Amino acid sequence: MARLQEADQQHPKEAIGWAARDASGHLSPFKFYRRATAEKDVAFKVLYCGICHSDLHSIKNEWGMSIYPLLPGHEIIGEVTEVGSEVAKFNVGDRVGVGCLVGSCRSFDNCANNLENYCPQMILTYAGEYYDGSITYGGYSNTMVADEHFVVGIPDNLPLDAAAPLLCAGIAVYSPLRYYGLDKPGLHAGVVGLSGLGHLAVKFAKAMGAKVTVISTSPNKKKEAIENLGADSFLISGQQDQLQAAMGTMDGIIDTVSAPHSLLPLIGLLKSHAKLILLGVPDKPLELPVFPLILGRKAVAASAIGGMQETQEMINFAAQHDLKPDIEVIPVDYVNIAMERLAKGDVKYRFVIDIGNTLKATSEL
Amino acid sequence: MARLQEADQQHPKEAIGWAARDASGHLSPFKFYRRATAEKDVAFKVLYCGICHSDLHSIKNEWGMSIYPLLPGHEIIGEVTEVGSEVAKFNVGDRVGVGCLVGSCRSFDNCANNLENYCPQMILTYAGEYYDGSITYGGYSNTMVADEHFVVGIPDNLPLDAAAPLLCAGIAVYSPLRYYGLDKPGLHAGVVGLSGLGHLAVKFAKAMGAKVTVISTSPNKKKEAIENLGADSFLISGQQDQLQAAMGTMDGIIDTVSAPHSLLPLIGLLKSHAKLILLGVPDKPLELPVFPLILGRKAVAASAIGGMQETQEMINFAAQHDLKPDIEVIPVDYVNIAMERLAKGDVKYRFVIDIGNTLKATSEL
Repeated sequence: MARLQEADQQHPKEAIGWAARDASGHLSPFKFYRRATAEKDVAFKVLYCGICHSDLHSIKNEWGMSIYPLLPGHEIIGEVTEVGSEVAKFNVGDRVGVGCLVGSCRSFDNCANNLENYCPQMILTYAGEYYDGSITYGGYSNTMVADEHFVVGIPDNLPLDAAAPLLCAGIAVYSPLRYYGLDKPGLHAGVVGLSGLGHLAVKFAKAMGAKVTVISTSPNKKKEAIENLGADSFLISGQQDQLQAAMGTMDGIIDTVSAPHSLLPLIGLLKSHAKLILLGVPDKPLELPVFPLILGRKAVAASAIGGMQETQEMINFAAQHDLKPDIEVIPVDYVNIAMERLAKGDVKYRFVIDIGNTLKATSEL
Repeated sequence: MARLQEADQQHPKEAIGWAARDASGHLSPFKFYRRATAEKDVAFKVLYCGICHSDLHSIKNEWGMSIYPLLPGHEIIGEVTEVGSEVAKFNVGDRVGVGCLVGSCRSFDNCANNLENYCPQMILTYAGEYYDGSITYGGYSNTMVADEHFVVGIPDNLPLDAAAPLLCAGIAVYSPLRYYGLDKPGLHAGVVGLSGLGHLAVKFAKAMGAKVTVISTSPNKKKEAIENLGADSFLISGQQDQLQAAMGTMDGIIDTVSAPHSLLPLIGLLKSHAKLILLGVPDKPLELPVFPLILGRKAVAASAIGGMQETQEMINFAAQHDLKPDIEVIPVDYVNIAMERLAKGDVKYRFVIDIGNTLKATSEL
């Protein structure tokens, strides 16, 4: 407690946001304090914040790791208002973003290889414990502060609202497409699930030159997948004849589904030596059929967001290719309804809160 | 049937062996016919044949794919007695071996990349359908014939009896150690299960320069693993404190266990970005915990034997490093007892049938 009190004294900057107070997950206005801008810190006025599915899990403590009050948001976009004396990369007025991480060991193994996202000491943007012992607060708030290492620049031609979901959903699909080698023209990539992540996986894989097939349980997503998102083909995951015809044709599959689902048909779609890459976190173990893996030297792999260098690379790639997520911009006082809709999958494809224009007006603290 | 009868007429060479007639799996003497030595064929007198665990599954039809009479054996060693007119690699008198495969498409995809073992048209050494429509018979017999492409040479300094298990168990562990990059000095490889495959995985990984930790359910295998097989350390898979201390230390794990078992502790032993490589075929799907995979970008992969070029490379590597499986040589009329002992795991570590000295004597046909 002494450590926390001391930390609080170092947090003199009043801020407002929307936070959950308990596992009901209900979000409401919340006054708190941000730290003073330290030597390597970048402080910014938040303009937009995306709503990630993990925000929904966190406010309801569905992963059992939540700390209340919990102020979510890790797809945070804004404009720099103050920089510390040793900040080299950013100036006041710059367009910037903060994603899932605000800290890591910065020294060993993964960090030494620009993979802060796999550092065992990584500090999450919200509900994490910061170096000073304080609990981190996310981007559903009017201001943000972060060490410049964990801040990315947003190129001028990328709209600020659409940039927000790239900071989690974007890097979450970009990194495995690169790491698992699905970024080459002529390869055939499968994408399972047309969610926030899934629709961006289609867009990034297409921009990298791959042929993309969407695999979905919903026949009515076919038109959307092909005409709006640019997928080359569409498979209904329950239709045996469609699956049979596509057996052994894919160089890799990005699986964005969090709900329990069968891996067997997906493994069948892979060519020999190819990988099924899981990005979703089901609450129970999945069933792994081993024989089909062995027969084709296939693998079930996984991936979690990306490092800071790769996040900036992804943002620049999106800007160069005019690649934007499809978003629904909402005022902050719509956030509880948005969470209900998100739980039902009722969004194409990412809610983005217009913090800059709506937070002050709705917060009568 | 017409096709089979025609095939039989092309099989004029009388042979003897031990075969199972039904799913009881009981093996007994069996007279049959081998084909005439074709242009690219190598015919040889069988001297030794290893007993693979899959022989046991096959004679009892545990995989539901057996064809009776079933004459098993795919770790076959002998001396060349006749070569076809177009055979380039072998001469009469050469020491040779045949492993799990005797045919494949020889043209496309995997075959074009020397990965005949992943060819969808591969022909198994026994209970497979050969190009001419006949059913293949394995190495528990006095003679063998195979296309030279599927025959490997055995270097002079490799004992013929000990060479036999290399043709399946040896290549089954060598190939994934190479493919998944565990063949570099200084890396830390785990080996789960001290079976026929497991003990060879330890020997090959050590010969490649890796540090090797054996993971086993049996504390009494520690002395054996370290003193006899040369492992560097030993973990008991049920002991949490031992597992905890070794968390995140392994660059890869070769898992040879066929029985259902928990992958969670094994995934925990892996470093970030490392792979758990499954070689065993459990009869039910395993439980795959996804969160630990995602947190470290880990993968569960698999592997099945190896291609012909790599099999020869493995045999040469074994000869160069004086690497031999630990075997128990048995006469052919002991084979039914050997199968009972194998089912109980009562062998260190591979039975090899001394065909050359015992088959004729025991076969009163």
